[in-house]
Amino acid sequence: MTTKKIVLTGDRPTGPLHIGHYVGSLKNRLILQETCTQFVMLADVQALTDNFDNPQKVRENVVEVALDYLAVGLDPGKSTIFIQSLLPQLFELTLYYLNLVTWNRLKHNPTVKQEITQKGYGESVSAGFMVYPVSQAADITAFKAEIVPVGEDQLPMVEQSNEIVRHFNRIYHTNVLVEAEALIPKIAARLPGIDGKAKMSKSLGNAIYLSDTADVVAKKIKGMYTDPNHLRVEDPGQVEGNPVFDYLEVFDPDKEKLEEMKAHYRRGGLGDSVVKKRLAEVVQAELEPIRQRRAQFEKDRGAVMQLVLHGSQRAASVAAQTLSEVRKAMCLDY
Amino acid sequence: MTTKKIVLTGDRPTGPLHIGHYVGSLKNRLILQETCTQFVMLADVQALTDNFDNPQKVRENVVEVALDYLAVGLDPGKSTIFIQSLLPQLFELTLYYLNLVTWNRLKHNPTVKQEITQKGYGESVSAGFMVYPVSQAADITAFKAEIVPVGEDQLPMVEQSNEIVRHFNRIYHTNVLVEAEALIPKIAARLPGIDGKAKMSKSLGNAIYLSDTADVVAKKIKGMYTDPNHLRVEDPGQVEGNPVFDYLEVFDPDKEKLEEMKAHYRRGGLGDSVVKKRLAEVVQAELEPIRQRRAQFEKDRGAVMQLVLHGSQRAASVAAQTLSEVRKAMCLDY
Repeated sequence: MTTKKIVLTGDRPTGPLHIGHYVGSLKNRLILQETCTQFVMLADVQALTDNFDNPQKVRENVVEVALDYLAVGLDPGKSTIFIQSLLPQLFELTLYYLNLVTWNRLKHNPTVKQEITQKGYGESVSAGFMVYPVSQAADITAFKAEIVPVGEDQLPMVEQSNEIVRHFNRIYHTNVLVEAEALIPKIAARLPGIDGKAKMSKSLGNAIYLSDTADVVAKKIKGMYTDPNHLRVEDPGQVEGNPVFDYLEVFDPDKEKLEEMKAHYRRGGLGDSVVKKRLAEVVQAELEPIRQRRAQFEKDRGAVMQLVLHGSQRAASVAAQTLSEVRKAMCLDY
Repeated sequence: MTTKKIVLTGDRPTGPLHIGHYVGSLKNRLILQETCTQFVMLADVQALTDNFDNPQKVRENVVEVALDYLAVGLDPGKSTIFIQSLLPQLFELTLYYLNLVTWNRLKHNPTVKQEITQKGYGESVSAGFMVYPVSQAADITAFKAEIVPVGEDQLPMVEQSNEIVRHFNRIYHTNVLVEAEALIPKIAARLPGIDGKAKMSKSLGNAIYLSDTADVVAKKIKGMYTDPNHLRVEDPGQVEGNPVFDYLEVFDPDKEKLEEMKAHYRRGGLGDSVVKKRLAEVVQAELEPIRQRRAQFEKDRGAVMQLVLHGSQRAASVAAQTLSEVRKAMCLDY
């Protein structure tokens, strides 16, 4: 018997998931759930660090994101889907770990620094936001996760967590906590927005959502940004930086045909509408089964919540075991 | 029926309690427990913020301080004595409150700033230490405490807590949280160390402990610092800044006799040994019943721990009620 590796992953429930999430992480989770013990966190507490004044939004998206998970094929029998705030152990671990991290270290976390700039927080950044890397360390270590799939920009988070693990184990003469490996998924792809902007995001309004109807998807693809200099069909067009081709690269299973289209587009004579028609075809083919599964689950949102609450109980019992070992190491086993 | 006011108080269990604690806060708690609903916290989590590398010390002192509480007459039937780390609700509240406090605000907390200087932390101060005022806000609000007895130097802590209360209630459109009033005890007195230094403390080794035997107390009083210029009995002596007289002021019930002694000492002819003898008399009279009660409780430390565990359960159920209201206000009532 080989023991399965433990994976922790998840999302901040601040909006519905889009096809960028799908190709960037969700597809990878479908693979991981077959070979690993996977915990998938609906990170409501983390979402509140920058949405504390809009808790209703977080609440609503917990269910939406859970539906997205089930729709893409995350299987609650294989992946434990849970709500972060339902695990009291995570708060407690966070507070203990805060003693092991200097104030200075938090201030210099590259990911957090960048986010503070992006969000324009400046001097008014909340303490909750500053300490969220430590809260992530609690999430990771509570499950003794060995693998944490992340984007490049999230690497400092896993580093911070591993630092805490080493510090904790050294100070408390234990090996209770386990270092995690950051996994930058090989199959992952980063999709630009349908407007050609580098990032697909809810706030930019340039995303295709997993929960979009076929009509909405068709309309969004029709309106996509392409090469702005490709004015007439006979003009040569540019494939690089053209999101329609970026998407085809990811979604079109017929790579030979795609190469032909690219060559045709470059030399001129291939209209954008034809390329978009092909894109719509392959994207709809990928999204259709997801939409069908979503429709099934949407019939009983109460049952979806029950699945997640059940997953939260299962996750909590794992976290409780780790916390009990942590407390023992810290002489807190009263 | 009048509802009793709710009081939260407690100590960091980092050493046995001394007569400075006794006259500074413990005696006041004996009064409060008669008229209020009093929660007395063994603040092990807070103690770990600056003792995270010595958890054994904190663990041992949890029992010692509990014994001190029972010895002075805190009555578990009237005062709920509990261990902070056994209330998971406090960690969770702390994390939620961190979103409502700016990083900057924490940095400028006067009490914390002073402590950082005193402890020589400088740039290496831990995040856990920096956020402990928010953890205190969790302690206070979890019980909806209306009264928090504090020393002058702790006033900014209650202010910080009340700020969080107002911010929380405003943002989440609720009145779940309750502001607390800082109570600077009227009967409290501040005792200098037996070496004449301004503060009695374990680290300075200049304290008389509630758990000291009669012999040790006698010896400590005999060796007390007095007026260094009072060399011969017939010399005039100084009463001000003379800790023996400071202590008599607090412990001697016979105020008339004390005034006579002071006058005699000032004009000369009253030996230090005579004054110290009187001090020993009144201090031992006060400590003797405390020692006797302590001896009783010490016979069964397991039972003392049971009392505290029972108190922790009671405290946790109050905190759980508050947390449930807090979660509802934050749309976290899944």
